[in-house]
Amino acid sequence: MSTKPYKGFEPKWIKEAAPAKSYRSIFRWGDPHFVKYPKESLYKMMKSTFNMTDDDFRQYDGDIGWDEVDLSAYPSKLSEQHLNGLRAIVGTSYVSTKDYDRLAVAYGKTAYDLMRIRERKFDSLPDAVVFPSTSEEVEQIVAYCTKNNIPLYVYGGGSSVTRGVEPVKGGVSLDMRKRFNKILSFNETDQTITVQAGLSGPDLENALNNAVTVFGAKRAYTCGHFPQSFEYSSVGGWVVTRGAGQNSTYYGTIADIVLSQKYATPIGCVQTPHYPREATGPDLNQIMMGSEGTFGVLTEVTLKVRRYMPENRKRFSYIFKDWETAMDAAREMMQCECGYSSVFRLSDPEETNLMLRLYNVDETPLHPMLDKLGYKDMERCLFLGFTDGEKEFSANIAKNIARIAKEHGAMSLTSFVCKAWEKGRFNDPYLRDSMMDFGVCTDTLECTVTWSNMAQVHKDVRAVCHALPNTIVTTHMSHCYPQGANLYFIFITRMNDSAEFKRYHSTILDAIQKSGAAVSHHHGIGKMFAPWLEGYIGKTEYGVFRVLKDYFDPNYNMNPGGTIGLDLPEDEKRFLLDK
Amino acid sequence: MSTKPYKGFEPKWIKEAAPAKSYRSIFRWGDPHFVKYPKESLYKMMKSTFNMTDDDFRQYDGDIGWDEVDLSAYPSKLSEQHLNGLRAIVGTSYVSTKDYDRLAVAYGKTAYDLMRIRERKFDSLPDAVVFPSTSEEVEQIVAYCTKNNIPLYVYGGGSSVTRGVEPVKGGVSLDMRKRFNKILSFNETDQTITVQAGLSGPDLENALNNAVTVFGAKRAYTCGHFPQSFEYSSVGGWVVTRGAGQNSTYYGTIADIVLSQKYATPIGCVQTPHYPREATGPDLNQIMMGSEGTFGVLTEVTLKVRRYMPENRKRFSYIFKDWETAMDAAREMMQCECGYSSVFRLSDPEETNLMLRLYNVDETPLHPMLDKLGYKDMERCLFLGFTDGEKEFSANIAKNIARIAKEHGAMSLTSFVCKAWEKGRFNDPYLRDSMMDFGVCTDTLECTVTWSNMAQVHKDVRAVCHALPNTIVTTHMSHCYPQGANLYFIFITRMNDSAEFKRYHSTILDAIQKSGAAVSHHHGIGKMFAPWLEGYIGKTEYGVFRVLKDYFDPNYNMNPGGTIGLDLPEDEKRFLLDK
Repeated sequence: MSTKPYKGFEPKWIKEAAPAKSYRSIFRWGDPHFVKYPKESLYKMMKSTFNMTDDDFRQYDGDIGWDEVDLSAYPSKLSEQHLNGLRAIVGTSYVSTKDYDRLAVAYGKTAYDLMRIRERKFDSLPDAVVFPSTSEEVEQIVAYCTKNNIPLYVYGGGSSVTRGVEPVKGGVSLDMRKRFNKILSFNETDQTITVQAGLSGPDLENALNNAVTVFGAKRAYTCGHFPQSFEYSSVGGWVVTRGAGQNSTYYGTIADIVLSQKYATPIGCVQTPHYPREATGPDLNQIMMGSEGTFGVLTEVTLKVRRYMPENRKRFSYIFKDWETAMDAAREMMQCECGYSSVFRLSDPEETNLMLRLYNVDETPLHPMLDKLGYKDMERCLFLGFTDGEKEFSANIAKNIARIAKEHGAMSLTSFVCKAWEKGRFNDPYLRDSMMDFGVCTDTLECTVTWSNMAQVHKDVRAVCHALPNTIVTTHMSHCYPQGANLYFIFITRMNDSAEFKRYHSTILDAIQKSGAAVSHHHGIGKMFAPWLEGYIGKTEYGVFRVLKDYFDPNYNMNPGGTIGLDLPEDEKRFLLDK
Repeated sequence: MSTKPYKGFEPKWIKEAAPAKSYRSIFRWGDPHFVKYPKESLYKMMKSTFNMTDDDFRQYDGDIGWDEVDLSAYPSKLSEQHLNGLRAIVGTSYVSTKDYDRLAVAYGKTAYDLMRIRERKFDSLPDAVVFPSTSEEVEQIVAYCTKNNIPLYVYGGGSSVTRGVEPVKGGVSLDMRKRFNKILSFNETDQTITVQAGLSGPDLENALNNAVTVFGAKRAYTCGHFPQSFEYSSVGGWVVTRGAGQNSTYYGTIADIVLSQKYATPIGCVQTPHYPREATGPDLNQIMMGSEGTFGVLTEVTLKVRRYMPENRKRFSYIFKDWETAMDAAREMMQCECGYSSVFRLSDPEETNLMLRLYNVDETPLHPMLDKLGYKDMERCLFLGFTDGEKEFSANIAKNIARIAKEHGAMSLTSFVCKAWEKGRFNDPYLRDSMMDFGVCTDTLECTVTWSNMAQVHKDVRAVCHALPNTIVTTHMSHCYPQGANLYFIFITRMNDSAEFKRYHSTILDAIQKSGAAVSHHHGIGKMFAPWLEGYIGKTEYGVFRVLKDYFDPNYNMNPGGTIGLDLPEDEKRFLLDK
């Protein structure tokens, strides 16, 4: 993250691009030429926190994935007849059984995935990768796989942290990145855009920001959806998992942004209604969203778009004296009826400690002042964000936030810290790869809480995370609502074994379920969180998901293997609540 | 509506309360002592428009329902054994087979219902009426009816205009008004309230407005949900039909206001999640809402509440030169990202003509001026509303609305017209009863449109309505969104026969379906709109509703008889779109 040379010992951070066709080129985050590693002060902090020495950073801990992918031990099990069947649909060039193509869509981006590739543990591989181009092709592939009982998976942006894309039963994986990424129509009157599900976040956003030239529109637009995975995520992935972007406090989660969806299901094409609200029975849009590929393949999405007016943005950052007061202030900001800030992010004391280092505040004269002014390290809480919308609307929210922050004893840190956060907002995953080369693991978990149970959930989950020695657990509140918020936990610890990671992850999820929080606010369920879902939803309630599955995909060929718990063995389910 | 004496002939408007136990006390709207009838200028307009003379108003057209209800020709068919079974659950006093109690819950409030009672046509009657008091009692009643195959209906506020409450298969109807109307808890931290489904709109709102004394809260709150039926509607009715209030442009429809729901279903109690957003599979809250009693009986609802700050309200009204320009202005107001006005109502030229009379603008010096200034009768469009929220937020929306109105050539009519509208907003149904006594029928239909197809739907539906001679069809846009709005059609015509009404109503619904609009924005589907639902949703898509029904209520005892089309004969369904 810093290009400043270290004064003392500097680990051999991997700064060069991974070789083409290598394992590393698959498991590392994003842009092959972008590198991020800890600056010296953070490196020192890591060593002391994790009880490590320079010696631990003299050699890589485990395989760094420099070799070319070789799956000769795992040949494709799909028959030539079926490969020909698929080729007949999309063309010969767009069906692949190559090793690299198969591994490239096998895993998402939870640390469990990265560790397994580093360990060369291939629990799941597709037998063939297909690159469709049109909704009609996808419909034919779904029909073909259904008829021939072939498991079908979808790989959109590949940033799943829930094992959502993992083809645990083999079969076919649709790689949407290459050809299923077109904008189909733009309607400026209704402020909507219709796209293929494989379109990437940046491609969507660039087209909207440049709508005047791209579509001949009157002005620029934005989708307002910016998950941390933005640069390597797809519209389809956002929708089927019910994702949320970092600006969701104003723009809403994707569940608010979607107007209509089209799916290729085993029983045919499904098109949801396209009106903002209606009273025509259960809401089909909200039934299909969250199905995570288990009802069929999402092909097309119509999204609401908003006017893009970054010139009206007001950035802010404040420091509060303690977590309790800061939570109260955040709640007041969300309930005072002045509209919502776009980014709205409050860090707990442990995260504040880390962020002030990450964003270089520790190198400014501000840092020593904070303690003197009563904003004490490991008590103080950093709050940052920015507003969007029409000029006066945006300014008035910032004004109310300033008023409420002041009333709660906070001090303004100007827009400096927010700008620093913006610079790093999409590239923290690169830092993770650098640390993992030396056996330091970082990953995240998140849940929804009400204002009433926020303090308790925060306390309970942190206690469980800290039960592992030498662990940093940082928490922030983001994606806020008048009734509650998302609590986002980031844990950093010395760990380099996928089985150990899975146990640790599972212990934290137990704690989240026991605390009564919603088991996911925006990451979705996938296969990794599936054991907790029925226990959270309730047995009678969960049965709804099962009858929907039986309706759309009675033979269980769509994203099979436990996704959202549908074909999960009973003994793997975790019922921890008295429900 | 006016207490001014007529100068010429005045019809014998019924001004006294209907006798206790009379038919009229059931079919007329609301407060027995409140009366509303047309002022003289409107009476004259009615005569000329409907081609009527004073002679048509010298005697009542048909029965005015003064007699005591007598159902001796329709005895209860429920066995004493079952009556005892129900008495064992709720107590002997709370199971009734009395004529009045049975008719009181048989019909809702569409003109079709009122006409049928005036005609003494009792297509549907419950065999017994039960008055439950707790969720546990409702759960036991659902279990009893399921076990014994007894149809079960629910009567909340009784303002359904879709035959939603009508017990077409007889059996039991739960009258929720008397005892199932309690507030269960209030959470000021989360700004939520949990209530029994039978609570009335005014009881909810009064408690919230007086939260300081009622709950010992820090401030006053509002639910923000004010349908025209507000005074005689129930929370449960709002939720199961997906209702919307007149302030929904700011507060959202009930689908936005509900946080959590509890149902008594044939397969057991169902409790939906209670977080503002989550990524835990299909959204159970949005699956249960819109089920209209067909999956089970809604027992408890947790609603989001907002701060009540009427002192910040900014009222406005404007007159535009024509419908096209006014629609453009409304769209700009909804898309400019400054937040949304609470009431936001734009009338088309025909409605504007009527409203200026209804709100007495025709008696002010303003009226003759409008034409002179180029705002011509039957071209000009009235736009009115008010803003809510934090002081500056509210003021800024009003400021933006003023700016956009001016840019589109509108003239301000100050807050006068909005205030006049507010006075009448909940009591127009009384006017309907007075007119119906003389064979003039008024009723409404509504649908959702996008901005793109709004003009076309408006034109198509009006053309069909006007095909009936001597008809007034007024339209307004309300419940607005950046992507579209609700179009609300009110037709007034000389008609006093339920069969004729049904044919006319059906013809208009055909036109709505053919135009591609959503068949309901907030009235729901019930039994009356059911024939159009599958054609609107699509066959594969509609199948979702059927599998949900099969899951919750496999024996079809919950609100049976075609509600949301579930047990509607195939040959009654109308498929008019190429879907």
